Amino acid sequence: MSQNRNNQSKMIGKQSIAFQNPPCIIAAASVAGKKEGEGPLGKLFDVVQQDPMFGKNSWEEAESELMKQAAMKVLEKAGLKKEDIRYLIGGDLLGQLIATSFGVAELSIPLLGIYGACSTMGEAMSIGAMLVDGGFADKVLSITSSHFAGAEKQFRFPLDYGNQRPYSASWTVTGSGAVIIATRDQAKLSPSEPAILIKGITTGKIVDFGIEDSMNMGAAMAPSAFDTIRQNFEDFQIEPSYYDRIITGDLGYVGKNILIDLLKEKNYDISNNYMDCGIEMFDKDSQDTHAGGSGCGCSAVTFTSYILKQLKDRNWKRVLFVPTGALLSQTSFNEGQTVPGIAHAVMVEAE
Amino acid sequence: MSQNRNNQSKMIGKQSIAFQNPPCIIAAASVAGKKEGEGPLGKLFDVVQQDPMFGKNSWEEAESELMKQAAMKVLEKAGLKKEDIRYLIGGDLLGQLIATSFGVAELSIPLLGIYGACSTMGEAMSIGAMLVDGGFADKVLSITSSHFAGAEKQFRFPLDYGNQRPYSASWTVTGSGAVIIATRDQAKLSPSEPAILIKGITTGKIVDFGIEDSMNMGAAMAPSAFDTIRQNFEDFQIEPSYYDRIITGDLGYVGKNILIDLLKEKNYDISNNYMDCGIEMFDKDSQDTHAGGSGCGCSAVTFTSYILKQLKDRNWKRVLFVPTGALLSQTSFNEGQTVPGIAHAVMVEAE
Repeated sequence: MSQNRNNQSKMIGKQSIAFQNPPCIIAAASVAGKKEGEGPLGKLFDVVQQDPMFGKNSWEEAESELMKQAAMKVLEKAGLKKEDIRYLIGGDLLGQLIATSFGVAELSIPLLGIYGACSTMGEAMSIGAMLVDGGFADKVLSITSSHFAGAEKQFRFPLDYGNQRPYSASWTVTGSGAVIIATRDQAKLSPSEPAILIKGITTGKIVDFGIEDSMNMGAAMAPSAFDTIRQNFEDFQIEPSYYDRIITGDLGYVGKNILIDLLKEKNYDISNNYMDCGIEMFDKDSQDTHAGGSGCGCSAVTFTSYILKQLKDRNWKRVLFVPTGALLSQTSFNEGQTVPGIAHAVMVEAE
Repeated sequence: MSQNRNNQSKMIGKQSIAFQNPPCIIAAASVAGKKEGEGPLGKLFDVVQQDPMFGKNSWEEAESELMKQAAMKVLEKAGLKKEDIRYLIGGDLLGQLIATSFGVAELSIPLLGIYGACSTMGEAMSIGAMLVDGGFADKVLSITSSHFAGAEKQFRFPLDYGNQRPYSASWTVTGSGAVIIATRDQAKLSPSEPAILIKGITTGKIVDFGIEDSMNMGAAMAPSAFDTIRQNFEDFQIEPSYYDRIITGDLGYVGKNILIDLLKEKNYDISNNYMDCGIEMFDKDSQDTHAGGSGCGCSAVTFTSYILKQLKDRNWKRVLFVPTGALLSQTSFNEGQTVPGIAHAVMVEAE
């Protein structure tokens, strides 16, 4: 870490925060769909739902139900009631966040609705950690969701069209991941269990490389992941080897290579400790998901299942979790606009 | 204010924060459209644009340009460069926040995208104030926008349809308001000028009274405004008379009466010091806007012009600013869902 750090300030470098009292992830939950449950991470999810409609009448209502189940599950796992949560910070991919609004309404928790496309889990955890470290909340619930069918309908084509998908296209994950972020003293840990702390964040800015293909999100988002990860290294004056894993949200196979190459040009080699949630989510050979998984739910369920388990099991100590988002809408795409990207990095450590 | 307040905590009551070092609004800017410029507040806006397309080719691009102009204007008024801003916190009404993403991209400021429908300015100022008070930022730019034509296309009918509007319908304001929130020592004040401080916030939860009419937003949002305002009184143990004005975002004529009645049932009388930005925005008799102004831009431009001026001129000392939002989308409305509301309160004081 930087020796130049001013101990009076939580602000580090240009875009980062180092928390003075690193908030703790005291509970996490993941709810995923059938296809995700059949993938390599399937056994690690708390709940795998076989019904893609989640018992509801529309894809949007299904996603709301999915998110509600994740929120209820994380409360159950933490042994908390909804009244114990000071803020719910959440978002999804649907226009005007209707999955979130209708999903968490009945929890009656003060809500900060956020949107960062598929980077939303990074934004939710960043704001949540700041509110806890700043003394504005004792417990915050950060949550995001996405649903394959709802996302295809929203951004590309309704499933009934049966359109072909190019190999650069990713597969939106049906899933919702939730964490409860709290002050460290609230973590109930067994003697051998590490605390999972959010040590710092690097908040991304919009990076637009002029990609106009909504079927190639990886290429659109890789430059923003590059920008945020490089900034994290610079702000904290660290090298890639500082982390056991650097994990992007959903760059997929296309974006992965672009990111590694862009960082290599700046003399940062992440090829040995890099992974991408979208690549981990599905089996490339058997699941026909082309470039990999994507969506607000992709990084959220991977983090709340696989990544946290590796940290809890002490296989990894330090992780840079970097959910990546493509800031397009159906309207902006149809009007010929580019697809700008954004990525928010969260420094998570087992201690 | 409450005598029971625990001085160790910034958390007050169930849903509120009292800032220990109240952040200061060091600059504000408003950019509005032609119709808004012809209304009662017209002379107070920094910029009134005569061209509804803002020189662009689509309503969405027009709104992005509108927001960019407001962001540039507030930087200019503050004498700051974009590099001086630690976070930009902003949102709009369009799906996937495309007005914001394309509007502020070239500013290259770390972005926290948020969505709270028309309550978004309350959310942006609340998060901004927490980040400054918590030491996570020295300067934050909070901004929202809306555009009449973009909003009609998004939520109701494209203007070309020439549909009729019921009297309960509000008129989405074409406008963008921006504030820079900073630590108090950064305010450049003349000797006679008061500092405009954010003393506290009350973050709203979703309140759904089952309204299903997208042409009657006032009725859908009034219960959430009631819920947040009542909670503010309770959390701080204050009466309505504590404030010189209690100001909702865009309840309009329909919602105004519902709010006053709901609070009266709880023995709170706000009828003497209540106003609504949507009502102030247009002249009811001559401008044919029915229930009043609405949209993310409505409360934002009213706050950054009229409300701040009253505080600066010491006509008012304490204001409760409560932007109100209706959490619907075109999809949720078409699928027969209700219109839940949310409202976020910001306690602003001239000192």
